[in-house]
Amino acid sequence: MRNLNEDTITQAVLASMANCRDARLRTVMTSLVQHLHAFARDVKLSEEEWFTAIRFLTLVGHITDDRRQEFILLSDVLGLSMLVTAQNNVKPAGCTESTVFGPFYVEDSPAYDNGADISNGAQGEPCFVRGHVRDREGMAIPGATIEVWQADQHGHYDVQIPGPDGEHTHRARGRLRTSEDGRFSFRSILAEPYPIPHDGPVGALLEALGRHPWRPAHLHFMISAPGCESLITHVFRHGDRYLDSDAVFGVRSTLVADWVRHPAGIAPDGRLLDVPYYTLDFDFVLSRAHERK
Amino acid sequence: MRNLNEDTITQAVLASMANCRDARLRTVMTSLVQHLHAFARDVKLSEEEWFTAIRFLTLVGHITDDRRQEFILLSDVLGLSMLVTAQNNVKPAGCTESTVFGPFYVEDSPAYDNGADISNGAQGEPCFVRGHVRDREGMAIPGATIEVWQADQHGHYDVQIPGPDGEHTHRARGRLRTSEDGRFSFRSILAEPYPIPHDGPVGALLEALGRHPWRPAHLHFMISAPGCESLITHVFRHGDRYLDSDAVFGVRSTLVADWVRHPAGIAPDGRLLDVPYYTLDFDFVLSRAHERK
Ligand SMILES: [Fe+2]
Ligand SMILES: [Fe+2]
Repeated sequence: MRNLNEDTITQAVLASMANCRDARLRTVMTSLVQHLHAFARDVKLSEEEWFTAIRFLTLVGHITDDRRQEFILLSDVLGLSMLVTAQNNVKPAGCTESTVFGPFYVEDSPAYDNGADISNGAQGEPCFVRGHVRDREGMAIPGATIEVWQADQHGHYDVQIPGPDGEHTHRARGRLRTSEDGRFSFRSILAEPYPIPHDGPVGALLEALGRHPWRPAHLHFMISAPGCESLITHVFRHGDRYLDSDAVFGVRSTLVADWVRHPAGIAPDGRLLDVPYYTLDFDFVLSRAHERK
Repeated sequence: MRNLNEDTITQAVLASMANCRDARLRTVMTSLVQHLHAFARDVKLSEEEWFTAIRFLTLVGHITDDRRQEFILLSDVLGLSMLVTAQNNVKPAGCTESTVFGPFYVEDSPAYDNGADISNGAQGEPCFVRGHVRDREGMAIPGATIEVWQADQHGHYDVQIPGPDGEHTHRARGRLRTSEDGRFSFRSILAEPYPIPHDGPVGALLEALGRHPWRPAHLHFMISAPGCESLITHVFRHGDRYLDSDAVFGVRSTLVADWVRHPAGIAPDGRLLDVPYYTLDFDFVLSRAHERK
């Protein structure tokens, strides 16, 4: 402990946790310290680089508030969020895959009946979404709760455009329940690609790395039903230019679907639309709780 | 890129940096991503644990301000600061070793003549510090700048006790120059052990890990001279109870010295002291720039 060098210090830090009474915390911190030290040694991190990292993390901390979570953004662009999602959501074959949760979920979003328009003023081309929720045997799951949220045609989620007094209006997000035969349907707007918030330190990092901040167009879904594993996922648009370079590494080919464009006319809800519209059909397959690995 | 799992995602993140024009940044970030992902896989980091880490870093960011740097504190207690210091300050044999810089250095500290009292009101038992600055051949280095800073008997640096209007008074810190024969001397106060700031998230982490926040008593020195490598180091007190458990892993046995206690009487500055006092004799050996590895 009195003659530590860049190699022996790692063992000294691990030994300092000998009295930790939380076995899992000790396991996690032991691995963290080993990898952190190995990183600093591998690249022979300089004192200037270390201080640049300190300043970067300070900026990430200072831009983070109730509305913006730059640490999650950092985790996202480094692929850590998708890695953690993937390794904690291994599903039985045939189940719909998970992807990242993202920072734009809101609790207590408004409940809608099937067939309703959830856009509530969000701007974009009309889009009708329909599907089933089933189990792996193809059995319909009635009464499943479906939460959906998405960006508007400018790439903004409602939480990113607060009202003049900072208040939040639920737009293009809502909560539905599957019918007796496991169906759901709603009207919303066409999802468009959007850049993750990139006016802060994470945006500067992406710029320095020669990376763009864009995500391919997608709908977010969180689906839960009694006796089933909850599912957090996206549905992506086939043909989107960012499917192979998602800034947060969330795309899975099984989650890419055709969003079909239709000319103006009678829409799926029976009304006459005087503008073109889209339809998306997508079925979700949940894992029964007892199937969980 | 469309079917990433917890193993393949690492390669995808590395590939996303293909257009980075800063070769060093790409090297550093490549290693960082590999180690970060390996850590998350090794411990199979759960989604709850990931979110606990996000919240922890958010707290670290929010307590950090102009006066307090909790990210540096975090780096210190994880041994990263000492590792970076050690691997960037390998000195030729015979030179005084480096240790961590710490967060309490202040630029433009007041200049003093040799023999002066630098305590300026800081409380503690009197301590007289004397020594030489030499090169490896034993040649005196005249005109070397010596900056010294230390905590008071309550374990506080002057910057931790701002005045009523938030202003800062330099106490127990100053700047000296070695004489023609390489000598320096000053009066200050006895250094005492102190806990690093532990009322924030880093303190909570230490508590959870079963670790204490204490550092053994020390004086900080930064010494520079034309044609020499600058030296940032401490001198520690022989016999201190925390020498083998320094919260920031900064102790080196070559930096531990005897601080000799004397009864009240004629002090080294020729004055009569009616209280006991200490003396510390310590010589520093700088590396000539051309010796640098
Ligand atoms: Fe999104
Ligand atoms: Fe200190």
